Amino acid sequence: MAGGTSLGAWTSCAADPGYRAAVLDLLGALAYGELSAFERLAEDAKLAPGLPDKAALARMASAEFQHYQLLHDRLAEVGADPTEVMTPFVEPLESFHRMTAPSDWLEGLVKAYVGDAIATDFYREVAVRLDDDTRELVLRVMSDTGHAQFAVDRLRQAIKEDPRVGGRLALWGRRLMGEALSQAQRVVAERDALSNLLVGGAQVQGFDLVEVGKMFNRITEAHTKRMAVLGLAS
Amino acid sequence: MAGGTSLGAWTSCAADPGYRAAVLDLLGALAYGELSAFERLAEDAKLAPGLPDKAALARMASAEFQHYQLLHDRLAEVGADPTEVMTPFVEPLESFHRMTAPSDWLEGLVKAYVGDAIATDFYREVAVRLDDDTRELVLRVMSDTGHAQFAVDRLRQAIKEDPRVGGRLALWGRRLMGEALSQAQRVVAERDALSNLLVGGAQVQGFDLVEVGKMFNRITEAHTKRMAVLGLAS
Repeated sequence: MAGGTSLGAWTSCAADPGYRAAVLDLLGALAYGELSAFERLAEDAKLAPGLPDKAALARMASAEFQHYQLLHDRLAEVGADPTEVMTPFVEPLESFHRMTAPSDWLEGLVKAYVGDAIATDFYREVAVRLDDDTRELVLRVMSDTGHAQFAVDRLRQAIKEDPRVGGRLALWGRRLMGEALSQAQRVVAERDALSNLLVGGAQVQGFDLVEVGKMFNRITEAHTKRMAVLGLAS
Repeated sequence: MAGGTSLGAWTSCAADPGYRAAVLDLLGALAYGELSAFERLAEDAKLAPGLPDKAALARMASAEFQHYQLLHDRLAEVGADPTEVMTPFVEPLESFHRMTAPSDWLEGLVKAYVGDAIATDFYREVAVRLDDDTRELVLRVMSDTGHAQFAVDRLRQAIKEDPRVGGRLALWGRRLMGEALSQAQRVVAERDALSNLLVGGAQVQGFDLVEVGKMFNRITEAHTKRMAVLGLAS
């Protein structure tokens, strides 16, 4: 954490009930996110045009599950019930997936790429506000699982072969970002402890919508740049 | 391999082109079987009645994928193209899964339990006819992934709570075994090298339908016993 100030270890930070609640929310959201990513990638594997691509998606799904396991074990270690902690995030994530079910292999790839990147941006924003132990875990489970390069390679090839798919996928990327923001706003509105952590860390008690908005803007800008890398206007 | 005669290492056995072809067939069938098991378990995870069961299925799917990876790497190591070697088994396995799509969580559990057990029986029958290196790999990837106990616990509980489901699941178990035998017969009829290996090992060149039939009978008997353990007449 270059230039940041360490909050110290989990054991000292968690003495503050607000901080503890916020971190459990965060780990619960992340854990269900990984389990959900496992399911989506396994689902997308069925759309794969051949066995090597199918196996590549299954490999990524498996990596997401290993991350889920780390988060699950950490939740149990700090005395939380993993199921209870994940439950508030089931409905927002399932809504997102219901609204953005890919209709083909390429849409699935864009979704895996964009979804993974948005999640990584979000958790990197949050990581600087965490105690050392939690931050280390979050950065570990957000480490690159190889999705991005795989998706970029396949998508560039597909757009090169038929430039018309670029227009369709650009629209799709916008829709994904819109739905992600919509569900994220919903979570922020409903989870006070988590929202406080997002905008100011353990010290800040007032909830600042402007700060949350700025964070979402930074994530949206990063999304725009990533879509441009693919040759897609967002 | 208690009491058996070792065929020696892969490198010496594989000098016989018939033996090499048979083992590549076997590893190809096993590899696609694992990839396919990954997909089915991930699919069944969606039917799970709660997060802990969903995570348990995802864990098993992940374990199947690790097994797939071992087989894939072994195929590449002996100079085979994993995709080419798996391809003949895609259609029989997909046919099996199409004909036996579970309509609910309990049917999915019976299928995972029965399917896993039939596969294990089959590969244990074959293992004694293999060179040392291949046998070690086959036994390793067929090692218990925890499916069986998980499924038995859940199924016994469900039958205890509502004995009527026992009748429905007994019928389902019969259908699964019937479809499995039907697809296995098809593979045996189409893959000569593999069939020779199944009935007599590398030494036997004549294809003996009676021996194959006996093997299928042994596997069916084991299935009957397993269904009885669940309290299901087969």
